[in-house]
Amino acid sequence: MSTALSSTEAYSLLSLSLAAVGVLLNTFTGEGEPLIASIAFSCLAFSSCYALIRWLGNAFIRRGFKGKDLCKLKQTEIPETMGAVCAMVYLFTIITFIPWPFYKDIVVATSGGGNRDVIKELEEVETGRLLHRFPHNKLASYLSAILSLQTIVLLGIGDDLFDIRWRHKVFIPAVAAIPMLIVYFVDFGVTQMVVPIPLRPYLGELFDLGWLYYAYMALLSIFSSNSINILAGINGIEVAQSLVIAVLIVANDVLYLSPFTAYPHPATDSHLFSLYLLLPFIGVSLALLKHNWFPAKVFVGDTYCYFAGMVFAVDGILGHFSKTLILLLLPQGFNFIYSAPQLFHIVPCPRHRLPHFNARTGLLECSRVEFKKPLARPVAEGLKVLHRLRLLDVETDENGQVVSSSNFTLINLWLVWFGPMREDRLALGLLAFQTAVGVAGLLVRHRMALLVFTADNWY
Amino acid sequence: MSTALSSTEAYSLLSLSLAAVGVLLNTFTGEGEPLIASIAFSCLAFSSCYALIRWLGNAFIRRGFKGKDLCKLKQTEIPETMGAVCAMVYLFTIITFIPWPFYKDIVVATSGGGNRDVIKELEEVETGRLLHRFPHNKLASYLSAILSLQTIVLLGIGDDLFDIRWRHKVFIPAVAAIPMLIVYFVDFGVTQMVVPIPLRPYLGELFDLGWLYYAYMALLSIFSSNSINILAGINGIEVAQSLVIAVLIVANDVLYLSPFTAYPHPATDSHLFSLYLLLPFIGVSLALLKHNWFPAKVFVGDTYCYFAGMVFAVDGILGHFSKTLILLLLPQGFNFIYSAPQLFHIVPCPRHRLPHFNARTGLLECSRVEFKKPLARPVAEGLKVLHRLRLLDVETDENGQVVSSSNFTLINLWLVWFGPMREDRLALGLLAFQTAVGVAGLLVRHRMALLVFTADNWY
Repeated sequence: MSTALSSTEAYSLLSLSLAAVGVLLNTFTGEGEPLIASIAFSCLAFSSCYALIRWLGNAFIRRGFKGKDLCKLKQTEIPETMGAVCAMVYLFTIITFIPWPFYKDIVVATSGGGNRDVIKELEEVETGRLLHRFPHNKLASYLSAILSLQTIVLLGIGDDLFDIRWRHKVFIPAVAAIPMLIVYFVDFGVTQMVVPIPLRPYLGELFDLGWLYYAYMALLSIFSSNSINILAGINGIEVAQSLVIAVLIVANDVLYLSPFTAYPHPATDSHLFSLYLLLPFIGVSLALLKHNWFPAKVFVGDTYCYFAGMVFAVDGILGHFSKTLILLLLPQGFNFIYSAPQLFHIVPCPRHRLPHFNARTGLLECSRVEFKKPLARPVAEGLKVLHRLRLLDVETDENGQVVSSSNFTLINLWLVWFGPMREDRLALGLLAFQTAVGVAGLLVRHRMALLVFTADNWY
Repeated sequence: MSTALSSTEAYSLLSLSLAAVGVLLNTFTGEGEPLIASIAFSCLAFSSCYALIRWLGNAFIRRGFKGKDLCKLKQTEIPETMGAVCAMVYLFTIITFIPWPFYKDIVVATSGGGNRDVIKELEEVETGRLLHRFPHNKLASYLSAILSLQTIVLLGIGDDLFDIRWRHKVFIPAVAAIPMLIVYFVDFGVTQMVVPIPLRPYLGELFDLGWLYYAYMALLSIFSSNSINILAGINGIEVAQSLVIAVLIVANDVLYLSPFTAYPHPATDSHLFSLYLLLPFIGVSLALLKHNWFPAKVFVGDTYCYFAGMVFAVDGILGHFSKTLILLLLPQGFNFIYSAPQLFHIVPCPRHRLPHFNARTGLLECSRVEFKKPLARPVAEGLKVLHRLRLLDVETDENGQVVSSSNFTLINLWLVWFGPMREDRLALGLLAFQTAVGVAGLLVRHRMALLVFTADNWY
C-alpha cells in the first residue's frame, strides 16, 4: 500500500476539511448549532482518519501489527489493528465537540477552591430544533460514554498486542462498561422498567429491576461487541455491518427530530445524544471501510469490533433505546446462536472458520469441518435436521455417518444458500440482509410498540 | 525475573487485599466514609499492581517490550513499559471509586428518555470531616480528570510502541490535557486570577487571563510530564521522584483537613479531590518502585513518566493549587533548564546521557560529551564559567580549548559534586534533594503567601 495520498485524495480531503472548518467557524458567529457542528466534526473525522490510516500503515507493519489475507492469491502482508487509529480519531472528535452541545455554566464569583458561589446559568433560549442544547446534568453521561469507549480502546489494543484468551476477552466489554454503569448509578440511577400491558396484572406498571438492570446493561455491552467480532473474517464485513447498524440507528434518531414530530419531544435529548455519538463514528468508519473493502489494504483488528460494538451499546443505553438496538443486532444474534455449537465445542471447531478461497476460480466457497471421530448420536441427528432445513450443508458417508459439515457461521451459510461467489459480492449480500432485517425491525418497533405499551417511546 | 509470586508475597498481598475489602464493605454499612474508602482502594491498587507486574512481565518481553540495563555488569533483558500496567490499575481504581465521594442524585420519576422530571437530591448531612462528600457538579471535573489521564496513557503506549519523535512527543501532554480543559471551559470557566498585592495598583484585584489561562494549564501539563521524563535514566528515579512529589502534595492536602484547620474550609473540596487522585497513585507507584528499584527487574517506560506528570498536572489544576505544584517541581525545572543547552543543540547531545557504569568498580561515574569540533567562543566561555561555579565538569587541552564536559543533567551534576557512587546511593541522594527542596517550597508557600496575597489559599 502506498503510504502517500494521491493528489486527488489530498485535495478532496483538504477541501472537505476546509469546508468543515468553515462551517464550524460559522457556528461561533451564529448561535452554535450543535447538530450542524456535529456533522462538520464528522467530516473532519473522516478526512483525518483517512489520511492517518495511510500515513501510519508502514509504522504499524514495522511494529508487528500485520497480517496476511488468506482469501487472496497474492498473500502480501498488510497492516493490522488499524481500527485503533479510527477509534483514536473518534475519541478526539467527540471530546473536542463537547463545548457545542452543552450550555456554559457561568460562574460569576468564586471564593476559591473551585466553589461555585454565584452561578448564573444561561437561559435555555430554544429557538429551534437545530439550536437545542443539553442541560448541564447530561455532561456527566456524555463524559462517562467517552470513558467507556476509551476503556474499550485501551483493552482492545491490549488484546491485539497480547492475544488474550477467548474466555477472558469475552468480558472485556463488561469491564469497559463499568465507567458508564457507575456514572449511571451515581447520576441517574433509575432501574425501573415499564411493564408491557399483558404482564401488568402480575408485575404492576413499573417494575424495579434493581441490580439486574446493571447486569442487563453489562450483558448488552458484551453481546454487542462480541457478536460483531464473531461476524467477521471477510474483507470489509466488520466495518460495513457496523455502518449499516449505525445508519439505521441514525434513521431512527432522525424520526424524533424531523419536522413531523412534536417538538420538544420527551426523547429529543436522548436521540440528539445518540446522533452526536454516531455521526463521527460513521465518519471514521467510512474512512476505514475505504481501505478495508475488497481487496483490503488494511485489517481492522479486534479493537475495531469491540469499539464499534461498544459505541452501539453506550448509545443504546444512554440514549434509552436498548431494546431497539437489540432488534438491529438480530443478524449478529442469529450468527452467535448459530455459531454456539462450535464456540462451545459441541461440534469440533477449527482454528479458522473463514470461507475457503478457491485459487482456480477466484471465488469463496463455504469452509468445512471434518469429523475425524464419529459424532455423538444426538448431535449427528441434529446436524441432519439442520441439513434438511437448509441451515447447514452436511456430508454423510455410505453408512449414514456424518463425516463433515459446513462451518457454523452466517457467512458460510450464505455460501451454502447461494453457492460460491466473489468476496465483495458475499459481503454485499450479507449487508443487504443486515439492512433488510434492520429496516423490518424498526418498522415492527414503531408499529407494534403501541400494542404492548401504552405509549410509544415512553422509555 | 520469576513471574510467580513467592508464597510470602502472595499471602501478604492477599491479607492486605482482604483487609481493604473488609474496610470497603464496612463503608457500606456505615455512612460510606469516602476518605477511608480511598485508602482501602489504594491498598487494593497496590496489591493488584504488584501481582500484575509479576504476572505480565513475560508477556511484555514476548511482545517486544523489553530493554537492557546499561548500568549493570550482566545485561539481561527485562520487561519495559510496565508503567502501562500501573496506569491501567490506577484508572480502574479511580473509576470504581466514583460512588463513594459523590452524593447520589435520586431521580424519583422520569417521563422517559432520561429526563429528570422529579429530582430529590440527598441532603448534605455533614457529620464530620471523614464523611464530607462532593456536590454533584464536581462529578464532571472528576470524570474529565480521568479522561485526561486515560488519554495520556493511550498516547504514552502509542509512544512506547512507535517511538514518536522528540519534537512531536513533547506535545503529548497538551493533547491529553484537552478533555480536562474543555470540561473546565464548559463546566467552570473561571479564568480570573487574584493579583498579588504589589501589582494591584496596575492590574486591579482580579485579572481575567481569558484564553491565556488555558494556555497556562496546557503548558503546566507539558512541563510536568516532560520534566519528569527528562530526570530519568537510573533505576527507580522516575518512580521514586514521583512518589516524593505525591507524598508532599498529600502532606499539603492534609494540612487543610487536619483537626487544627477550620472546617468546612473553602478549599476542603479541592484538597479532598486531590487526595482521591493521589492516594491510589501512591499505591500503584509503590508496587512499581518495588520492582524498579536498584537492581531493577522491570523498566517503567515513557508511559509512566507521562502518566505521573499528568496526574500531578490534573491534580494541581483541578485542585486549584497549580502554583504550589510548580514549587514541588523545582528540581525537575532546574534539570530542564540545565539540560536546555543540550536539548536545543547549543552543545552536542549524545544519544544517551546516562551516567557511565564503571565495570571495574561497579560504581556510576558522570558521563561526558566530547567536543570533536571546537565550540563557538561564547559557548566555550560559558562552559568555563559553569565549571568555575561547580555546575559542570569541563576538561580543557593545553591551549585552553574545551575538549569535553560532563553531560548536562542533574544526575551527572550530582556525580560531579559527590564523586562516583553506586546506583542506589545516587538515586537516594537525588531523592533527598527532591524532598528537601519540596519541604522548603511548602514552607515558603505557607509562610510567605500572606506577604503577597490578602488571604492564604484564596485561589
